[in-house]
Amino acid sequence: MPIRLSIEAEDFETRFRALLAGKREVSEDVDQIVRDIIEDVRRRGDAAVIDFTNRFDRLQAVSIAELTVTEAEIEAAIASVDSATLDALKLARDRIHAHHARQMPKDDRYTDALGVELGSIWTAVEAVGLYVPGGLASYPSSVLMNAVPAKVAGVERIAMVVPSPDGVLNPLVLAAARVAGVTEIYRIGGAQAIAALAYGTESIAPVAKIVGPGNAFVAAAKRRVFGTVGIDMIAGPSEVLIVADGENNPDWLAADLLAQAEHDPAAQSILITTDATLADAVEAAVDRQLRTLPRGDVAGASWRDYGAVITVRSLDEALPLVNRIAPEHLELAVADPEALLKGVRNAGAVFLGHHTPEAIGDYVGGSNHVLPTARSARFSSGLSVLDFVKRTSILRCNAQNLKALGPAAIALGEAEGLGAHARSVSIRLNLG
Amino acid sequence: MPIRLSIEAEDFETRFRALLAGKREVSEDVDQIVRDIIEDVRRRGDAAVIDFTNRFDRLQAVSIAELTVTEAEIEAAIASVDSATLDALKLARDRIHAHHARQMPKDDRYTDALGVELGSIWTAVEAVGLYVPGGLASYPSSVLMNAVPAKVAGVERIAMVVPSPDGVLNPLVLAAARVAGVTEIYRIGGAQAIAALAYGTESIAPVAKIVGPGNAFVAAAKRRVFGTVGIDMIAGPSEVLIVADGENNPDWLAADLLAQAEHDPAAQSILITTDATLADAVEAAVDRQLRTLPRGDVAGASWRDYGAVITVRSLDEALPLVNRIAPEHLELAVADPEALLKGVRNAGAVFLGHHTPEAIGDYVGGSNHVLPTARSARFSSGLSVLDFVKRTSILRCNAQNLKALGPAAIALGEAEGLGAHARSVSIRLNLG
Repeated sequence: MPIRLSIEAEDFETRFRALLAGKREVSEDVDQIVRDIIEDVRRRGDAAVIDFTNRFDRLQAVSIAELTVTEAEIEAAIASVDSATLDALKLARDRIHAHHARQMPKDDRYTDALGVELGSIWTAVEAVGLYVPGGLASYPSSVLMNAVPAKVAGVERIAMVVPSPDGVLNPLVLAAARVAGVTEIYRIGGAQAIAALAYGTESIAPVAKIVGPGNAFVAAAKRRVFGTVGIDMIAGPSEVLIVADGENNPDWLAADLLAQAEHDPAAQSILITTDATLADAVEAAVDRQLRTLPRGDVAGASWRDYGAVITVRSLDEALPLVNRIAPEHLELAVADPEALLKGVRNAGAVFLGHHTPEAIGDYVGGSNHVLPTARSARFSSGLSVLDFVKRTSILRCNAQNLKALGPAAIALGEAEGLGAHARSVSIRLNLG
Repeated sequence: MPIRLSIEAEDFETRFRALLAGKREVSEDVDQIVRDIIEDVRRRGDAAVIDFTNRFDRLQAVSIAELTVTEAEIEAAIASVDSATLDALKLARDRIHAHHARQMPKDDRYTDALGVELGSIWTAVEAVGLYVPGGLASYPSSVLMNAVPAKVAGVERIAMVVPSPDGVLNPLVLAAARVAGVTEIYRIGGAQAIAALAYGTESIAPVAKIVGPGNAFVAAAKRRVFGTVGIDMIAGPSEVLIVADGENNPDWLAADLLAQAEHDPAAQSILITTDATLADAVEAAVDRQLRTLPRGDVAGASWRDYGAVITVRSLDEALPLVNRIAPEHLELAVADPEALLKGVRNAGAVFLGHHTPEAIGDYVGGSNHVLPTARSARFSSGLSVLDFVKRTSILRCNAQNLKALGPAAIALGEAEGLGAHARSVSIRLNLG
């Protein structure tokens, strides 16, 4: 049973705080293993990558060339995908591309009132590594969500790594990589793949940034190489928060709660509603739908262990709770979602009205499905084109405006005890 | 002596690679100590913060109130600052504000050809913690560079922490905090301050993001609380790369190289020039200026241990080296810096022409001086308003466009084995 809270209960604040503080992530301590793997890849390059891959994925490769996915393999994968699914991938790609193209920041060069030239110019990261998990969590949609924004940003090289345990690769993942414009694919995974991307080997050129989800080993490896390369956020288990007024179809809301819960036993689905009768009906619908769900065991465990239903007296009362939860996904299943949206401060993505199930955003809405989890929407954003570009500041003084600004710079340099700072200005003003 | 490389030498590539790979950071292993301090602050709150502060900063405080900087103390600090320096702080604040206001991203709501409503809306982080080091590295300019962008972004609460060893606080830092709009100041530092900001105590409300430079303990604490709160990048030692043609005043370039070197014995100053005679003259000028520099010992050690002078045959030949170094600060001391700028891909900030010493950018240029170090300009940017806002994606379908997009979402959900994803769409299309 999910927990049930009422804002009218005396212990509400205590129980709500406990809900916020609840840990859903199991943190495995794999740091020592990961450190050794990374060191070995740095030392032995290709040979180490091949050894770890053969051992962990039960292969007998003798070269990185053998672990490189060929054009023919990609073509074969695409040929094996039914045309409806391939068309769906292309529709998703086109919609993601169109939405993300609007995020491309513009250069800004200008001259201020003093005549000083300033500016910000944006350039794409030169090479990006994209990690794709093997096995069950090998999602083609994630390939699109990570690779298409990089492509839009102008990244020239997108190197994908995906483990192939026992030689098995998901053909849909290869198809998605082709559709998204990935430029090279290696059949490697784990910390050894992250190390190869970060430091490079004889056969694999290093990248400047690594993105994409992975297991505890991958996450630990990403944390460890951070600084040498950029990384995206380390994603936690997925979450949805649905805010619903009384006018809702309980079956629709139950389906949405379960769509989140089926990801992972540690996923979290929360319903906040003004209507206790609806709350009961949704709980009943969840139980009903669980019986016929292919991943009912996963979804059921998530709903039982982390699900929550909260009743409030008004939608206004719901807003502070929404902002404290800072959900990855927020559905506003209410008559006037725009009005409620005005009060939303912390959320990764918001789905408005009754006809926008979160799953649309996972696939074909166009916005990104890589979003901040575990309350990090308080300080961070979903993946976007901005993650694949960087800004360079521009400054240009001439002799005249250096004369105007120089004395203040000299004063501050001297106040900070940085004499060479002051001198680098004064020497140009014939002052020192 | 700094190293001297010529691109014409046979071993150039080997030696240039060694320069790139050179480590300048001493990584102290303080992680265990930091972990214990953070755990204690989480457990005992105020009492732990007070204990650590009394111990490390040699104080006898009995409450957080006593460690909170009062209005009267700020006023007294401002009164003690000479008016030229105070005016310089205000000029810097105004110029930083004006430049950063241009970085504020705009909301983007639109309806696509299918009638789907999409968008991105930006909101400010609610509360930010600003770490300011005590002692020598307590720079008022850094307070401005961190706090003003937060203010521009619309952050309501900016909580500053600054240790006061033996009770001593730099009055300029308090003046800068007031000028920048910091809303509260605590006389605490180290890992205990980071823990208090991240988790909150009885007296200190938690923040959502922590920015600002600090020593090894602060850096380790920031890494550890990352996830619970956002953090800015962990800055390494500062660097400048100057690209110069033959038409330069060697004394000016020497002053600029030393302005970087005086920050830290681990700072790095590099000159790339087309003119070997100029290179000799700059080296001689550095030696001369070192004799009269207040921080000559620091600057001299940096120049000796990490300085480099590289001669190239043409400016075109310099560009690939610039982009591989990916410097924090890049001065283009050449006749046509705009032409050269077109080829710059990786740099934190670029200073154009002969009258823009980097120190102008440290103080009063208007752009931010918190910039990516240690080659991280390949994948990251300087501090900006974007670090204090976050983006929420918006998606809204109606019954009609859900019908258009739904089948593709169902196909992908089923292809990924996520039945509840598919059902959350099909149930609204009366398909399931």
